Amino acid sequence: TNAIFTGVPTTVFEVMSRLAIEHKAVNLGQGFPDVDGPEELRRIAAEATVAGPNQYPPMLGLAELREAVAAANRRFYGLDIDPASEVLVTSGATEAIADCLLGIVEPGDEVILIEPLYDCYLPMARRAGAEIKLVRVAPPDWRLDRDALEAAFSERTKAILLNNPMNPAAKVFSEDELALIAELCVKYDAYAICDEVYEHLVFDGRKHRPLMTFEGMRERSVRIGSAGKTFSFTGWKVGYISGPASLIGPVAKAHQFVTFTTPPNLQKAVAKGLASDDAYYEGFVADMTAKRDHLSDGLARLGFPVLPCEGTYFVSVDIAGMGLGEDDVAACRTLTVDAGVAAIPLSAFYPGKNAPKTFVRFCFCKRPEVLDAALDRLEAYL
Amino acid sequence: TNAIFTGVPTTVFEVMSRLAIEHKAVNLGQGFPDVDGPEELRRIAAEATVAGPNQYPPMLGLAELREAVAAANRRFYGLDIDPASEVLVTSGATEAIADCLLGIVEPGDEVILIEPLYDCYLPMARRAGAEIKLVRVAPPDWRLDRDALEAAFSERTKAILLNNPMNPAAKVFSEDELALIAELCVKYDAYAICDEVYEHLVFDGRKHRPLMTFEGMRERSVRIGSAGKTFSFTGWKVGYISGPASLIGPVAKAHQFVTFTTPPNLQKAVAKGLASDDAYYEGFVADMTAKRDHLSDGLARLGFPVLPCEGTYFVSVDIAGMGLGEDDVAACRTLTVDAGVAAIPLSAFYPGKNAPKTFVRFCFCKRPEVLDAALDRLEAYL
Ligand SMILES: CSCCC(=O)C(=O)O
Ligand SMILES: CSCCC(=O)C(=O)O
Repeated sequence: TNAIFTGVPTTVFEVMSRLAIEHKAVNLGQGFPDVDGPEELRRIAAEATVAGPNQYPPMLGLAELREAVAAANRRFYGLDIDPASEVLVTSGATEAIADCLLGIVEPGDEVILIEPLYDCYLPMARRAGAEIKLVRVAPPDWRLDRDALEAAFSERTKAILLNNPMNPAAKVFSEDELALIAELCVKYDAYAICDEVYEHLVFDGRKHRPLMTFEGMRERSVRIGSAGKTFSFTGWKVGYISGPASLIGPVAKAHQFVTFTTPPNLQKAVAKGLASDDAYYEGFVADMTAKRDHLSDGLARLGFPVLPCEGTYFVSVDIAGMGLGEDDVAACRTLTVDAGVAAIPLSAFYPGKNAPKTFVRFCFCKRPEVLDAALDRLEAYL
Repeated sequence: TNAIFTGVPTTVFEVMSRLAIEHKAVNLGQGFPDVDGPEELRRIAAEATVAGPNQYPPMLGLAELREAVAAANRRFYGLDIDPASEVLVTSGATEAIADCLLGIVEPGDEVILIEPLYDCYLPMARRAGAEIKLVRVAPPDWRLDRDALEAAFSERTKAILLNNPMNPAAKVFSEDELALIAELCVKYDAYAICDEVYEHLVFDGRKHRPLMTFEGMRERSVRIGSAGKTFSFTGWKVGYISGPASLIGPVAKAHQFVTFTTPPNLQKAVAKGLASDDAYYEGFVADMTAKRDHLSDGLARLGFPVLPCEGTYFVSVDIAGMGLGEDDVAACRTLTVDAGVAAIPLSAFYPGKNAPKTFVRFCFCKRPEVLDAALDRLEAYL
């Protein structure tokens, strides 16, 4: 069996969720909301399921969803995307990333990944045949260093895979950082695979800016969005990729052999969701901002140094000196089993050596009473 | 971009469906029923969608669906499958095949494929790093030749990918053929990836027999089933893999990075579906048998030599001497554009040289009036 996959453990999110269930812990580990998205969208999906047809939709996705993705690109970012040739619907952002890597990378190509990284990136990139170049940003400031990034690029760089807003750093890349990445992609003729699933989860008046909007990037970027994150239906597994036809073409070939299509009933509801009025998007940010503040303030009250959160639905704390030891993995086990609150160790996002070892990530997209219960348990334990 | 994928065309099923829509042809090309599966299952899915949670289910699949898959293995084949470690739910059989190839194959391994083959097999196997060994069966008798098969095996054979019942041959492999495949897998220490999506679509009193039930195969086979095919919901994209934990382990690693999970609302309905009483499964076969006979008899009346159909929902004819030329690809275009009936050229399933070129596949899982309309159009054209 394949050594790349047999060499990687079950994803930390699944492991911690299982442990949380086993120990009846409040699950602030794996990132998913505990309140489903809009009932209207659930009803649209349900009605389409009963009415049918429940048969193969077009391989690229339902026309109405591709048009909605194009319209959202225009509305939010002023991007001009052709729904017929520049959009691909996938079975979630995870499939989108797999399709991009399998469709773009040739064995022997170099792919740049930025640590901390989402755990599918590295094994899928290696499985696609890539040689990995890691660049690191680290808490507490998560700054991207120009020299470190430039050193990772070479004539063999095929692509950089960028997560912005960035899980688990809760970082929104600055204009300067994005401009630097764009400059190097152009200089080294590299593609950018942009995992922007948290595009609608940026706080404090920030606006997400896709790397694709930078000079020279329109033709060399694919941009991945997620209905799971944007409409709080992580189980629906509906994602979408926008990009030039020259890249959507080969990526769609991967898609046709990886899943071929995505349920049409869910696609229909997501198309409606993307066309939601501003009140939906603003309300979503306001709700998540309140949750972020609720958890961050509570953790700070308990004495944790809490890192800033500019985007995503995660907030991290430094556990050094909190009596939880200096090993985030052990600490997360302790927190889950003994304190009854599941969390994710940040070192799990660092495949490289000498990872930061004293940071722990909490997911805040939970009901206030759940956040309170978690804070109460932490307080009781500490 | 990746040469394997840029080198393959858009799937023939998609191409012919688009052409059918464009020319308002009766679509007997791409294989999907024109009547959705049981309303009860649609209602279960719809209710679960409205009630939620619509969040990530467990990565291996909902416990109730894994248990239903294990129970179906016992009920239909006497197989003893552990739902906790020997079942994986996937986003359709296409993903299941991708997961098996990516999880099992190492670059440089040999993988045996039998022509005619479903079009994702070869590019995904190559993308996984396999060297392909093709073995051919051909119309009209589709017999598997012992010497040809044995010649394809070597010390480097990692796996054989077998589709049984076989699309588009409509062939059910005989006990002798399966015993031969099993014998060679054991002799060469190879795995079998068994695409058995048509397991419940075998006719005339036949019973499907999984390769996994043969001597020595329980520990070296993964068996893929499909809710799309078994319950007539091809758009739901729910598949399932059964196999020993030693193989489900690495295959699940691929799955966790390819899609991670499958919508829980659909999984719930499929769990219920698998537990359907015998009347459902028998009624499904009876209905499809009637449709097969309806189309086969009609095509024979028009003068086509019709090949036997033992399983699947496809029937093929020889077009030689029917005034449609001797090139199945051109003939299918003509049939779609001029006769108004879309069909699939069998040569599209033969990546090797010197493919049979005068056979055309029709899909018969359509309402009687649709089959009649197709037959009328063909008659008018011929
Ligand atoms: C695929 S489960 C992980 C969900 C998530 O995005 C996270 O927790 O980081
Ligand atoms: C993935 S679309 C093809 C459907 C099918 O199984 C076929 O037509 O053979």
